[in-house]
Amino acid sequence: MATTLISGGTVVSSTGRGPADILVDGERIVALLHPGTTALGANLAETVDTVIDASGKYVVPGGIDAHTHMSMPFGGTTASDDFETGTRAAAWGGTTMIIDFAVQKFGERVQDSLQTWHKMASGQCAVDYSFHQIVGDVNDESLAALRRLPDEGITSYKLFMAYPGVFYSDDAQILRAMQIGADTGLLTMMHAENGPAIDVLVAQLLAEGKTDPYYHGIARAWQLEEEATHRAIMLADLTGAPLYVVHVSAKQAVAQLAAARDRGRNVFGETCPQYLYLSLEDNLGAAGFEGAKWVCSTPLRSRQEEHQDQVWQALRTNDLQMVSTDHCPFCMKGQKDMGIGDFSKIPNGIGTIEHRMDLMYQGVVDGRITLERWVEITSTTPARMFGLYGRKGVLAPGADADIVVYDPNGHTSIGLGKTHHMNMDHSAWEGYEIDGHVDTVLSRGKVVVADGEYRGRKGDGQFVRRDPCQYLI
Amino acid sequence: MATTLISGGTVVSSTGRGPADILVDGERIVALLHPGTTALGANLAETVDTVIDASGKYVVPGGIDAHTHMSMPFGGTTASDDFETGTRAAAWGGTTMIIDFAVQKFGERVQDSLQTWHKMASGQCAVDYSFHQIVGDVNDESLAALRRLPDEGITSYKLFMAYPGVFYSDDAQILRAMQIGADTGLLTMMHAENGPAIDVLVAQLLAEGKTDPYYHGIARAWQLEEEATHRAIMLADLTGAPLYVVHVSAKQAVAQLAAARDRGRNVFGETCPQYLYLSLEDNLGAAGFEGAKWVCSTPLRSRQEEHQDQVWQALRTNDLQMVSTDHCPFCMKGQKDMGIGDFSKIPNGIGTIEHRMDLMYQGVVDGRITLERWVEITSTTPARMFGLYGRKGVLAPGADADIVVYDPNGHTSIGLGKTHHMNMDHSAWEGYEIDGHVDTVLSRGKVVVADGEYRGRKGDGQFVRRDPCQYLI
Amino acid sequence: MATTLISGGTVVSSTGRGPADILVDGERIVALLHPGTTALGANLAETVDTVIDASGKYVVPGGIDAHTHMSMPFGGTTASDDFETGTRAAAWGGTTMIIDFAVQKFGERVQDSLQTWHKMASGQCAVDYSFHQIVGDVNDESLAALRRLPDEGITSYKLFMAYPGVFYSDDAQILRAMQIGADTGLLTMMHAENGPAIDVLVAQLLAEGKTDPYYHGIARAWQLEEEATHRAIMLADLTGAPLYVVHVSAKQAVAQLAAARDRGRNVFGETCPQYLYLSLEDNLGAAGFEGAKWVCSTPLRSRQEEHQDQVWQALRTNDLQMVSTDHCPFCMKGQKDMGIGDFSKIPNGIGTIEHRMDLMYQGVVDGRITLERWVEITSTTPARMFGLYGRKGVLAPGADADIVVYDPNGHTSIGLGKTHHMNMDHSAWEGYEIDGHVDTVLSRGKVVVADGEYRGRKGDGQFVRRDPCQYLI
Amino acid sequence: MATTLISGGTVVSSTGRGPADILVDGERIVALLHPGTTALGANLAETVDTVIDASGKYVVPGGIDAHTHMSMPFGGTTASDDFETGTRAAAWGGTTMIIDFAVQKFGERVQDSLQTWHKMASGQCAVDYSFHQIVGDVNDESLAALRRLPDEGITSYKLFMAYPGVFYSDDAQILRAMQIGADTGLLTMMHAENGPAIDVLVAQLLAEGKTDPYYHGIARAWQLEEEATHRAIMLADLTGAPLYVVHVSAKQAVAQLAAARDRGRNVFGETCPQYLYLSLEDNLGAAGFEGAKWVCSTPLRSRQEEHQDQVWQALRTNDLQMVSTDHCPFCMKGQKDMGIGDFSKIPNGIGTIEHRMDLMYQGVVDGRITLERWVEITSTTPARMFGLYGRKGVLAPGADADIVVYDPNGHTSIGLGKTHHMNMDHSAWEGYEIDGHVDTVLSRGKVVVADGEYRGRKGDGQFVRRDPCQYLI
Repeated sequence: MATTLISGGTVVSSTGRGPADILVDGERIVALLHPGTTALGANLAETVDTVIDASGKYVVPGGIDAHTHMSMPFGGTTASDDFETGTRAAAWGGTTMIIDFAVQKFGERVQDSLQTWHKMASGQCAVDYSFHQIVGDVNDESLAALRRLPDEGITSYKLFMAYPGVFYSDDAQILRAMQIGADTGLLTMMHAENGPAIDVLVAQLLAEGKTDPYYHGIARAWQLEEEATHRAIMLADLTGAPLYVVHVSAKQAVAQLAAARDRGRNVFGETCPQYLYLSLEDNLGAAGFEGAKWVCSTPLRSRQEEHQDQVWQALRTNDLQMVSTDHCPFCMKGQKDMGIGDFSKIPNGIGTIEHRMDLMYQGVVDGRITLERWVEITSTTPARMFGLYGRKGVLAPGADADIVVYDPNGHTSIGLGKTHHMNMDHSAWEGYEIDGHVDTVLSRGKVVVADGEYRGRKGDGQFVRRDPCQYLI
Repeated sequence: MATTLISGGTVVSSTGRGPADILVDGERIVALLHPGTTALGANLAETVDTVIDASGKYVVPGGIDAHTHMSMPFGGTTASDDFETGTRAAAWGGTTMIIDFAVQKFGERVQDSLQTWHKMASGQCAVDYSFHQIVGDVNDESLAALRRLPDEGITSYKLFMAYPGVFYSDDAQILRAMQIGADTGLLTMMHAENGPAIDVLVAQLLAEGKTDPYYHGIARAWQLEEEATHRAIMLADLTGAPLYVVHVSAKQAVAQLAAARDRGRNVFGETCPQYLYLSLEDNLGAAGFEGAKWVCSTPLRSRQEEHQDQVWQALRTNDLQMVSTDHCPFCMKGQKDMGIGDFSKIPNGIGTIEHRMDLMYQGVVDGRITLERWVEITSTTPARMFGLYGRKGVLAPGADADIVVYDPNGHTSIGLGKTHHMNMDHSAWEGYEIDGHVDTVLSRGKVVVADGEYRGRKGDGQFVRRDPCQYLI
Repeated sequence: MATTLISGGTVVSSTGRGPADILVDGERIVALLHPGTTALGANLAETVDTVIDASGKYVVPGGIDAHTHMSMPFGGTTASDDFETGTRAAAWGGTTMIIDFAVQKFGERVQDSLQTWHKMASGQCAVDYSFHQIVGDVNDESLAALRRLPDEGITSYKLFMAYPGVFYSDDAQILRAMQIGADTGLLTMMHAENGPAIDVLVAQLLAEGKTDPYYHGIARAWQLEEEATHRAIMLADLTGAPLYVVHVSAKQAVAQLAAARDRGRNVFGETCPQYLYLSLEDNLGAAGFEGAKWVCSTPLRSRQEEHQDQVWQALRTNDLQMVSTDHCPFCMKGQKDMGIGDFSKIPNGIGTIEHRMDLMYQGVVDGRITLERWVEITSTTPARMFGLYGRKGVLAPGADADIVVYDPNGHTSIGLGKTHHMNMDHSAWEGYEIDGHVDTVLSRGKVVVADGEYRGRKGDGQFVRRDPCQYLI
Repeated sequence: MATTLISGGTVVSSTGRGPADILVDGERIVALLHPGTTALGANLAETVDTVIDASGKYVVPGGIDAHTHMSMPFGGTTASDDFETGTRAAAWGGTTMIIDFAVQKFGERVQDSLQTWHKMASGQCAVDYSFHQIVGDVNDESLAALRRLPDEGITSYKLFMAYPGVFYSDDAQILRAMQIGADTGLLTMMHAENGPAIDVLVAQLLAEGKTDPYYHGIARAWQLEEEATHRAIMLADLTGAPLYVVHVSAKQAVAQLAAARDRGRNVFGETCPQYLYLSLEDNLGAAGFEGAKWVCSTPLRSRQEEHQDQVWQALRTNDLQMVSTDHCPFCMKGQKDMGIGDFSKIPNGIGTIEHRMDLMYQGVVDGRITLERWVEITSTTPARMFGLYGRKGVLAPGADADIVVYDPNGHTSIGLGKTHHMNMDHSAWEGYEIDGHVDTVLSRGKVVVADGEYRGRKGDGQFVRRDPCQYLI
């Protein structure tokens, strides 16, 4: 197998940083070396097949985006990135693994849906991938299937407290599913918004002629995220199930998570870049139909209420543990525009998979988080949370050689015609400037991005079986 | 320089575990290797000077005890362990670095006290050491000296809200010192108990004839720890100084720390093994004068009030970040017995330095914390907290080869005549049984404990200059 | 009209106490007088028709029980007290007004249900009465009817988050109703328990053969009361509706109410005597089927978890504002016994209407609350909460002469064959001894209880139209 | 004795309102009467000496200002109102009783200071008065004197956590005093600011040339009020002493009080009009030396931080229980101007005694509080808090005839040359317009203000002995 030496860089882990060389043999890291050591009796730089010079750069574990929706069916259309385009954009952005969602719809069998998603992804991906299982129809049969998921290498499943009639589970269903979560260690992921209440507000707003994208944010009030978050926590408390709340955006929901964690509960929360940078007023409230670009759920929150600062703070205090994208892109033309005159018909989703590592690195530059915390929230914690650590999320002997060389002296201009490899006709991040750059990306030992070129191909990425969440006790 | 290979073990870090070999060259780790890798073109097991077989064992970074008091003058006597005996006991117990305290008393100069402590420790220690600076007389001169401490490799100092007339600082003094902490990044360590109020209660109890060791715990009520903890937090909030509260024992004090952290403040807390295992009723309240063994401050708390469980929980939730010993041993005969008939004359302190790693490992066995959290609270976090990470607290290329091979199949019986190398005539932990054992200990590459023997010598340990706290942002 | 002078007593209000004589003319109080005053130019004791000597006794406003269910249809049977027997027992116990519930069931019209209840009560009652409106089928028509309730003198309505398929409203329905509450000032009363989750647990317990009354308390876990309480609060927060949570029993639900009130929300809570004195272990867990006597919802809570002390404390701190009975009696024979072998078939309810004033007075004797707070939680606050103050809840000129002379030197032994005028074949309070006694009761000026005799007759009580809640701002 | 009938008004109590006539005989209320009642057999309007027509007006219990400082020695000068001028202004403003402070300075005897204040007030006052006892030198002798205060009709005493070297008590002193509070029921009043820390900041600001009045507010940061409030609460918790925190201004201090009350502690708090209406930016920060008018301690808080709204809210939620003035006026010329060039030399104090009832009534007009709450926070609660209820704070038979007829259709323009009877050369409330007016004031049955004239005279007011706090249990 081919060997590669990444030398001269500063290796950054979730706990610290220091100079070290990394030796890759085939798909795995086989050694971390003190630069210039002679104790090995060999000059590796001469014997390896390839040397990557990381001088002046950070060497970090490849990003793990634990929340993506390739080809997701939603609102009568389908997310515009499929596994090929989406994972290629991921690679461009320094993300070397995604965890997507297999979707059991009402009336379907869980195992069938998982097979469907396996077929969609197999042979298509640029980077490694796994699935969470969405359970859209909780019943005796799907609950039995849930118990068998660990055998398939799937150790997390997702329920929705929103979208009645589509993915929605009522509290009786949630309780029954969580009992299995407690029993098996399967991590319950929760979309925590009170869907039935939201639907009332949506209907009322539309009836009042309030049809612009802005009202998407009004209908999905923070009270309804806070409420559902608390409800999920209490059902988890009752059953003993570990809980992971997805795409947390409201500061009050953060406070509920923090309180539960202070009580010692196995309760976790992710946020997404959009909740850190974008807002109801500035984005959803953009003139005309422009706001549709940023229609996602949970919605962007009010800048006046200072949710963004609070979510940044929670990332720092570990009241939120990690950052995913909830990547679910839709084009304006032919997709988002279905909602002209009725915001409720705008497909929900933003495309961010390519920019997550950059956007969060900017948080380091801006003094929001440390460099180590950047690694932790984008890679190490996602790996530990979803049972991948050891293979992923860390630069250590035996780990998959998913490695990013990140250049703190580089620069990245985000936007169409600049950096943009997602299958979208716009960028939700147009104009964002990043004081850093993804330089080189290795996926299981193979250089897939270097010198501004994509060198991988579809099918490089493989399905990865996962262990249970590594945070529980 | 001599090379050593530690092979076959499971390397455990603060984030995960996995099989890896560790190559030591001289005093440092130079490589972490995937077992059996051939990419190096050499069979290291044959070329190194020494091979340590760690099969079936954990390989972890050496313990760092960030709170010890060798030869500490207190109450008219001196802690019974000096730097020689104390650090040797540390080595026996898998602790490869201590941070002790230089003590500026009233009327002394800070720099003189630091030199005094340097002299006391130099050439005596079995393992590496550093100092925090106690400031017992806050005034213009000592504050100026405080500013210069980082130049001496000292990045933390300690104040006392207890012990009026001895180490006590009033709020005006604390405020002035913290302003320098905010300015320089020096970490303020705080003994948080309301000393003036305690002294009133002590005098009243003694006047009532309540002279037994038990009343030490009554006088030092939890309200007075909670109060002082909150006061320290608010003064830190006002000044912007980072704060580290030592020996937290009351659950209500924990709650104050948790609340401050949820508000995003740079506030940290340590606890000690005694607050996790021992109690007011069972230990301080032992028959006769026996309770004197466990007279320390903050005191052991009531088991009925369930402080111990809450402190364990806080260790898990990271509301408390690390475990030190506050090692400050006194013999019963000739020292503790000065307090017969007057608990206030019992020298305050417990000896635990030898048992910290074992006692906390037992928390892993008991399901209180994970194996990774054990490493984190005993080594990685102490290193990051006190500016040592990179050299200490992690097994990584370039780090000091402070390494413990820990045997999960071993057993340790604590007690006099069993394991006990501290200079005490009793053990505060007599009868404790640990389901694990410190097998081999390396200090900067040298095997100092192996095969049940101590192989080091005094003077092995060196003074280590420290960087600022690595948690701040 | 006849005049009555109540003289010599200590008049107690919600804010204080003092000697005063009360002059009643017909149905109303016309004067409060300083004993022995000569400024009126008349010796009233000689001119009035009747003098009641209250020397050595307390004179307080008649009790208002704001939560009763006479003839309530539930679980295939009907509460055993009808308006005649129930209100007569109320009078015996010093309660001179009740607010019962008109029940709109699924498929019925609100206005029809109100008429039904008017017919049931009219001409039957011993004391004055009003109704809250239960809305069991929230839809466009019932919501429209809700808006018109104030015209009927009804200013509060009740929803259930429990009992799916019977009274249950989902969150969409609750939201819509609360919007009307916010708009009209109608007070939303909420039975806050997560019914769908409870029903899952009930089915599981029964399937496991856990059929005893005790499991009623296990199925209705505190988490499910806490959760629903918080949910109701957040929906009220979103809509701006004032909220009143009925029969609060879990300390964690109390904490949610306290937090909402600290945030300035118009959120209120009642508890009932059973949650102050009785417990899961001692009562629901009684041997055999005996526990069925105490099956009510919310359930009795665990004594070990100290809910009772916390609820008493909340009564004192005003985190809970008042005490009602939730009087809904069922006989053991022929009613409760329907649930032998299946706790879920036991009709939910306890009969307490006769003993509320006494049981709460015992809280004064026991040092739980002050004498003034007794008056406040049993009469003044219920009057203010439900728009009756001025006519009821206070001894003031112009108020209805609903007056209780209470003897602190009397004694009351509760139990069948002792004091018991409710239509039940058992007493839920058998054996309780009260250090006080209801001496004389006036209802709108008429002496209905005196000298251990009932002197009223059915039909004395009239329907009272209510104003909006008098606490809102 | 002369009789007076106040007829036609709406009598407002702390719990409700309604039409009632009040009959006064000599100094006391002897009857509350239903207007038009014939049951008395007399037409009182014809038989009484005087009839006051209160038609269209509110009739309320006279205001009680529980925190005033007449002739207070402070900073080398003396408050500009003495007992004569200050209590006359009180009467003008509808306040019919004050509780001032006897001041024990360092080195003095408590009993001597009380006698001094008795002499200063005796024969001077326009309305009734009492004293709290300031203890500025806690020692064995003053503590013994404290125990005897109830015999003097004094049931509350005050300590200062601010003003080291003047009134300051350290924590040991506070603890000892509170032990007596717990033992005797004496209410501990606390000025809760961390004085030693403040003094450091003051010195630093002055050294930096920051000498304007604005910096008074910067030096007395909210953290130092919050901290001291919490400390006082915890010392009260430890000892069991009931606690009353004076002049609460910071929202964070309010939160500490709320938390303690939610835990069931006997902890109370007052605020003052200045903390509800005025701010750091708008007043203390006024141009030039103008801000000196509003130098008081605790200081005015930042409007940007929204303390004022939070304090209003706390008044509504009863997290704060009452409103006093902390009336302590100083003239600009010759007093306040001592601090030109050094804000620390500005005498601390604002004069508000004349306007408290009006300013708080404006809160009713503005929808901040209800009419009933106005009565409660200005009269009823002060009476209950300080052991006066029954004689004061309520309109009931037997109570002192301290009565205010308040005209909601009147208007009051505050300012020099408009309404202003305090002995000050400026008004801190210049330009405030009130939508209501103090129409008529009776003090113990005597009309002292009517028709825009003052009809009383000095010496009308008498010393009132007080019972213990009536809130404790």
